[in-house]
Amino acid sequence: MTTRLLLLGAGRSASTLIEYLLRHAPTEQWFLTVADANPAHLAPVLAAHTEYARAVPFDLENEPLLEELVSQADVVISMLPALLHPVVAQACVRHGRHLATASYVGPDIAALHDAAVAAGVTLLMECGLDPGLDHMSAMRAIDHIRARGGYVTSFKSYCGGLLAPAAEGDNPWKYKFTWNPRNVVLAGQSTAKFLENGHLRFIPYQQLFGRTEAVTVPGYGEFEGYANRDSLSYRAPYGLEDIPTILRGTLRRPGYCAAWQALVQLGLTDDSVNLGNAETMTWAELVEAYLPTSYVPHLDLSLRLATYLRLNPMGEEMGRLNWLGLFSDRRVGLANATPAQLLERLLAEKWQLQPHDHDLIVMQHLFEFELDGATHQLTSSLAVVGEDATHTAMAQTVGLPLGMAVRRLVRGEVAQRGVLIPVAANLYEPILDELAADYGISFTEEER
Amino acid sequence: MTTRLLLLGAGRSASTLIEYLLRHAPTEQWFLTVADANPAHLAPVLAAHTEYARAVPFDLENEPLLEELVSQADVVISMLPALLHPVVAQACVRHGRHLATASYVGPDIAALHDAAVAAGVTLLMECGLDPGLDHMSAMRAIDHIRARGGYVTSFKSYCGGLLAPAAEGDNPWKYKFTWNPRNVVLAGQSTAKFLENGHLRFIPYQQLFGRTEAVTVPGYGEFEGYANRDSLSYRAPYGLEDIPTILRGTLRRPGYCAAWQALVQLGLTDDSVNLGNAETMTWAELVEAYLPTSYVPHLDLSLRLATYLRLNPMGEEMGRLNWLGLFSDRRVGLANATPAQLLERLLAEKWQLQPHDHDLIVMQHLFEFELDGATHQLTSSLAVVGEDATHTAMAQTVGLPLGMAVRRLVRGEVAQRGVLIPVAANLYEPILDELAADYGISFTEEER
Repeated sequence: MTTRLLLLGAGRSASTLIEYLLRHAPTEQWFLTVADANPAHLAPVLAAHTEYARAVPFDLENEPLLEELVSQADVVISMLPALLHPVVAQACVRHGRHLATASYVGPDIAALHDAAVAAGVTLLMECGLDPGLDHMSAMRAIDHIRARGGYVTSFKSYCGGLLAPAAEGDNPWKYKFTWNPRNVVLAGQSTAKFLENGHLRFIPYQQLFGRTEAVTVPGYGEFEGYANRDSLSYRAPYGLEDIPTILRGTLRRPGYCAAWQALVQLGLTDDSVNLGNAETMTWAELVEAYLPTSYVPHLDLSLRLATYLRLNPMGEEMGRLNWLGLFSDRRVGLANATPAQLLERLLAEKWQLQPHDHDLIVMQHLFEFELDGATHQLTSSLAVVGEDATHTAMAQTVGLPLGMAVRRLVRGEVAQRGVLIPVAANLYEPILDELAADYGISFTEEER
Repeated sequence: MTTRLLLLGAGRSASTLIEYLLRHAPTEQWFLTVADANPAHLAPVLAAHTEYARAVPFDLENEPLLEELVSQADVVISMLPALLHPVVAQACVRHGRHLATASYVGPDIAALHDAAVAAGVTLLMECGLDPGLDHMSAMRAIDHIRARGGYVTSFKSYCGGLLAPAAEGDNPWKYKFTWNPRNVVLAGQSTAKFLENGHLRFIPYQQLFGRTEAVTVPGYGEFEGYANRDSLSYRAPYGLEDIPTILRGTLRRPGYCAAWQALVQLGLTDDSVNLGNAETMTWAELVEAYLPTSYVPHLDLSLRLATYLRLNPMGEEMGRLNWLGLFSDRRVGLANATPAQLLERLLAEKWQLQPHDHDLIVMQHLFEFELDGATHQLTSSLAVVGEDATHTAMAQTVGLPLGMAVRRLVRGEVAQRGVLIPVAANLYEPILDELAADYGISFTEEER
């Protein structure tokens, strides 16, 4: 019997997912409907697969269409923006269809748990990279430690979407956008919370990028991690309620965070105020507007900025700001914008991924555990380099785990109903095995 | 013929306003209805005035009651929270009643202008202290300068609700709450905008309290001012569209802002994150949670904090933090709170106005203007000391201008309809004259 899959949203980051679904459709007896706002770009992708795949136009505003598509499917996969998932999940519960996404379980989704259980529906969330592969790989390591009789006392987990070394070029930030630029500009704008040796730790936004930790990934060199918003919330789903140290963070190449901290301290990441600025204002004029009046106004703008922020005028942070063109006569190009909007516009150009660039996904878990009276350390690391501008490491590491989760779901290997994230072995084992065997995506473990 | 006045909301800050209205009710032929959630406390106040005043219970949720009260009044005065003014103003327009308040014209009120004009209604807003007395006194000075043929090139205006010197006692902040504590804790949490010599100036929150200006008020000593949110918006109503320098700010006693900056940098004014803290956490533990791990953990907490924030460990800023009890075993006393909520709870006790304390309102305008080819400077200063805990300087300087504006309105001396603020001479002249003649509240001018 044919299983009907519905994929909602087929943007660039869905490329690898669609290929995975097409690859397995004939043997698994799937018929795939891809619903997207612009289905035209899917024609060449689906051309050789018309027996078991089609594309249909989809309009986010058209709720009757959503109802119709969901009712005609057996399993729904959504790559739509996370904001839209409550509506999609509600439709799935109403029609008794399973759902799989790579998005976080928000309060609206969590509230559907009982209704989903009653309807016999699985809402399988957080099945991409982060969240997704992070849960799977961390839980496999934690379960292995426990199976040996160990007790986890420290868990730090970092992930970053970065650049393959060749793509870093002469960009001193060693960073380009491989994901939503706005999220990168606004990253960290709340107090981060984590646990260290049994003590709560808080880092407010204005200190966050100044308080990083060094991380080394074998074969890929040095990184630095800044703390994510709420690391405490991972204790319950991972069964680590009493763990003394837990921290989740985001990775950047060394030096990025100190320079970003300068942008934060200057005020350029604020998204709450309309500056009332002219489109023709230059970046030098904008930076000038943030500086106190100088008693020695003829001094070079960058020197006055360095003095204001207590930076070395000839140091690396100032080099990164200068490389962005912050002291140039380049126009900001947007009127009546927030500082964050202006910064995003500048970075979108400076940090644009080029067609020949390869991206890099890095993930590392660092565990400490007690076993047989001794303290052990386990490091589990993953690095994935993108194949090309379409088959990015991001598209692979988001799309493949999601596709594989759907495959398990359709095969009936997921008995759990209600809202679910992939922390149980019946999901993470086959997915991690398939990633390693078929795609060479595997974690390297080192224990000391 | 009797004019029926309705006063909505009679909290502590309305005391002087009510006395003003009662004083003039017999001669002006007013009948005053005071509508308040707890009218019992008004009985002693109104006991001697029952011929021309009454108190009625009022419930903010009860819209039919609001309709009834408004329809039975000729002029409505509101001391309700600003949030409620759109609903009140709509009722006034519907029933063709004038309204006077001490609150800002928000977008909802501004949108009522045309309807109010059509209904022949005056919505007289911003008639308290700040906004209110600031408009009146600044516009009188500006109009005088213009009448002499001068051209205003710089306008800086500061206001603060502070303490009479005797009430400052040994409190090193020289500050207690005479107004909404929450607003004080969250003050400045957006980028401030102003103009300086024709250049836009922006100060983000994380720098705001580190960039103050010294202000001297004759007879009252030294203050420091930090920039308010949007000084640019005052250009249009004051007719200063082309002015090169305009800044509005809030006054504190010297040293307050540097110590507050330390609280901001530490992270204690963030209101966006639930810390998930226990009620029994101590202030020392909370501060500890904000510090990076120390390589020398036995060092005194305050010394580590000073090092982290680059403060002199024995300096005034640290003295102010210590006086608050930030390094003590005192419990934070609230579970699952934001840092701002915990800070407000601590300050509510430390900065509590005592019954014998007198408050102080300070306002100063600093003008520069061109006249006869020369640059002139004009400083206009006001200081008002409260009489007692009920007749505070705040209650006087909010209530008297509002009461006087109502008197002008009832007398038919305000011909303008629609949404209005007191920037025209027909309002500010009689009010400033009455304040000086009857209450000794007058600005001292110095010109150089």
